[in-house]
Amino acid sequence: MSTTTAIEAATNPGLPEDTTADGLYEVTEATTRAARTAPVLAALGRAGRGRLLAAMADALWADRERLAATADEETALGVPALLAEVARTADQLRLFGRVLDEGSYLGVTVDARSADGTAFPPVRRWLVPLGPVAVFGASNFPFAYGVAGGDTASALAAGCPVVAKEHPSHPRTCALVLDTLRRAATGAGAPADVVTMVSGFEAGADLVRSPHLAAVGFTGSVGGGRALFDLCAARPSPIPFYGELGSVNPAVVLPGAARNRPVDLARVLADSVLTRGGQVCTKAGLLFLPKDADGDAVLEALLARVTGTAWPVLLNSSICAAYVAGTAARAALPGVRVLTRDEPSAGGRLDPVPPVLLTTDAATLRENPGSALSEECFGPCALVVRYRDTEDLTAALAALAPSLVCALHADDADGDTARAVLPLLAAGAGRVVWNDATCGLRVGWATQHGGGYPASTASGTTSVGAAAIGRWLRPVAYQGVPAGFLPDELRAGDEGDSAGEHAVPFRLDGVPLPSPERKNR
Amino acid sequence: MSTTTAIEAATNPGLPEDTTADGLYEVTEATTRAARTAPVLAALGRAGRGRLLAAMADALWADRERLAATADEETALGVPALLAEVARTADQLRLFGRVLDEGSYLGVTVDARSADGTAFPPVRRWLVPLGPVAVFGASNFPFAYGVAGGDTASALAAGCPVVAKEHPSHPRTCALVLDTLRRAATGAGAPADVVTMVSGFEAGADLVRSPHLAAVGFTGSVGGGRALFDLCAARPSPIPFYGELGSVNPAVVLPGAARNRPVDLARVLADSVLTRGGQVCTKAGLLFLPKDADGDAVLEALLARVTGTAWPVLLNSSICAAYVAGTAARAALPGVRVLTRDEPSAGGRLDPVPPVLLTTDAATLRENPGSALSEECFGPCALVVRYRDTEDLTAALAALAPSLVCALHADDADGDTARAVLPLLAAGAGRVVWNDATCGLRVGWATQHGGGYPASTASGTTSVGAAAIGRWLRPVAYQGVPAGFLPDELRAGDEGDSAGEHAVPFRLDGVPLPSPERKNR
Repeated sequence: MSTTTAIEAATNPGLPEDTTADGLYEVTEATTRAARTAPVLAALGRAGRGRLLAAMADALWADRERLAATADEETALGVPALLAEVARTADQLRLFGRVLDEGSYLGVTVDARSADGTAFPPVRRWLVPLGPVAVFGASNFPFAYGVAGGDTASALAAGCPVVAKEHPSHPRTCALVLDTLRRAATGAGAPADVVTMVSGFEAGADLVRSPHLAAVGFTGSVGGGRALFDLCAARPSPIPFYGELGSVNPAVVLPGAARNRPVDLARVLADSVLTRGGQVCTKAGLLFLPKDADGDAVLEALLARVTGTAWPVLLNSSICAAYVAGTAARAALPGVRVLTRDEPSAGGRLDPVPPVLLTTDAATLRENPGSALSEECFGPCALVVRYRDTEDLTAALAALAPSLVCALHADDADGDTARAVLPLLAAGAGRVVWNDATCGLRVGWATQHGGGYPASTASGTTSVGAAAIGRWLRPVAYQGVPAGFLPDELRAGDEGDSAGEHAVPFRLDGVPLPSPERKNR
Repeated sequence: MSTTTAIEAATNPGLPEDTTADGLYEVTEATTRAARTAPVLAALGRAGRGRLLAAMADALWADRERLAATADEETALGVPALLAEVARTADQLRLFGRVLDEGSYLGVTVDARSADGTAFPPVRRWLVPLGPVAVFGASNFPFAYGVAGGDTASALAAGCPVVAKEHPSHPRTCALVLDTLRRAATGAGAPADVVTMVSGFEAGADLVRSPHLAAVGFTGSVGGGRALFDLCAARPSPIPFYGELGSVNPAVVLPGAARNRPVDLARVLADSVLTRGGQVCTKAGLLFLPKDADGDAVLEALLARVTGTAWPVLLNSSICAAYVAGTAARAALPGVRVLTRDEPSAGGRLDPVPPVLLTTDAATLRENPGSALSEECFGPCALVVRYRDTEDLTAALAALAPSLVCALHADDADGDTARAVLPLLAAGAGRVVWNDATCGLRVGWATQHGGGYPASTASGTTSVGAAAIGRWLRPVAYQGVPAGFLPDELRAGDEGDSAGEHAVPFRLDGVPLPSPERKNR
């Protein structure tokens, strides 16, 4: 009997599960079910949870046509983009399967001898699941940051049941995804209640206050995110809140790059602003261009590209209204000028809006740190910031709030300036892109999606990529506990170690040791 | 020019440092100095910071006689215990030197090819220092959890300057340690201001509100810690608060162990209660004994040992007053009985106090979850909890608040009960000890010192041991940035990689790779 099955025996009353339920519950029932499911999910072990994630990935992919069509009705993002997003979402689930299989994420560490070689009762440290977690998805990625998104994938991989908050902007998509995940779970021998859902504004607040809850993942606005962060911090027992709140991402064009390739830059910058109608957290909101003829050439090419682009339909009417009001408010600020011709107007739900490019100079931006210029505005708009010289540029960059991502466009001639600018960009941002668009986050082992507040409420973490699993784990050390009472992975380094297929890379007395070869790799 | 020296060039105005200053500053000056020092400390690199920590360890050890004598005057902990603590403190600094040398802590991860082998602009992720941090030390370990303690050692190793808060209970020791560290720093070629200090209650609150501050480490009471946690969460830009607040650690004796070795158990339990006058965060505050003749025998032996022990002098008069009031309040609760003969009284600062053993049954403990019985009481006291059977025991354990540590005393005959109890203990505690005292934390690579709230405000972290460095770091990913612009450690896997002595273990396309051999290992 492993420790996890012992947990199961100790805490799971074994109530029959209603596998026909749709998974949408009141907060108390959802969190109680999640708490009951936690030991079962932990007891599945790495291999069982890997099978669970693979089954979910397969099920989403099998349902992709229906999922994308439903999401398109609710978001207007377009079926092709949504099909690609379902693929990314399935890939994320499979990535965490590989993370589980490889096993380094457990951080298994064994101390058994002191520096002089004296043996002592071994201390064995690893990471265990935190418990049930809440996931608040985003409006703009109904799949990749939704009920089946990266927060859910990483939490389930860690062994934490998920209580999702239904997104009011795409409730039918949420329900379909939930149903797909729950059917896949039971098919893979796991309880359907590894994922449940609650609905409504008050339910969201009650959810993060629930005594059963161990952590919260959130992607959304600064206002909503900060309110939930505050609720988490004010709990009798505070819990971690992993929130991605908002980010005005800078893209900096250095003089050499502007001189050598204005048309290429215009394409990359336009992609950075217009992808998905500018409704991505990685949109470049500030475009720094030199205030000279080379910068003018880039701007001219960019304007041509932006005004030649089809107008997008925005996600919902409140985002559309915020875009109309937000671009108008920015345009009215002293020192700010509108570069584009068409003004967005609040039409119907499915009326497209024109892209908006505004411009100002670096000094104006720097001297108005609290203004709307440094706030995120969803939609196809950006502020072009003209800088006179390196000093003018670095002063403006040093005054920026932290961001999720930033881009530096530099050519060979820009070396010294790039060296001065790079550390300023990296000082707040989670990801620094060289000569490419800010959008288009590759999901892998080295992915970082986070940054200083408000880009993230937990700058030491990432919400995307393999390392995201670390948010849902906590360390436990066993001192002198006999191997027979330990989980398989913790028997590493034991005399007659027979962890076999459970073997993971571990550290013994400070020395990292690779994982033994396993048959199924 | 490396990235870190570029940071230095960009942000360090190069103001002359006053190396003759004692390091005790007003909050604004201390945090401004720390912010100025941050890029310099980062630019020292892993090797330079390793030399800094070694110099600090050597200096503390060289000053040990004077340090221990001063601390003894302020804490009454006794010179031998304090000399041992200086040794542990120096060892902690040296441990982080090894952590820096080995380099895994940076988490270097490179994605360069997709699953089908296609190359893309590499994404290189590593961890960078958060910035200046505050360290609030504890009353009971003036060295190991003080100005030069584990929080300071791990923060400096990470590259974060430390602003210490002077402890009002041992200000002269704080000043001496500060002076020793600052002299060692300048001797090692680092700025003295890598460690500064502020003094006073208000300064502590102002410190955690400082815009220069990036994180807080705290060891102390639930009241003080929660107040500072709340201030951190309420900042315009919240910062992480790593607080060790309080813990009532359970030690559980199973029936087989009680039957086979009552005298041995009495010794280990007495050590768990009386070490350092019961003024350690790892004190066993709840001793679970079976309610039968075997349990009676353990209790009898324990009582004999406890009443035969010399009475300790407590750390200060407020801890002494809390001990007198706290033991009396617990004794007055219904269902609680005092086992010891002598009553503590509030005498002078240096008057010893008698140990106090109280007893109750598991049901009483379980039915009073919010009472003083489940609150930490500093000093040589513990509550003996008698349980009838496994069900009675597990019900009581399931109702306990999380703790830093717990102990399970079990013999061969206890196997099934141990399997039922272990997961309940591990569910909240950071460390599970088998057949040994809860006190006596070994500082190494596998060390875990943390737990659920209120044992820790950040249960995903440890405040002691190698992993403690992770609290002061945040990830940054560089996408497509040419090797010439990257820090040495991030050139791993690059064509013509020449990281040389900076080489660290890293992960390439998901596969962990060991560190190349280096000459100085």
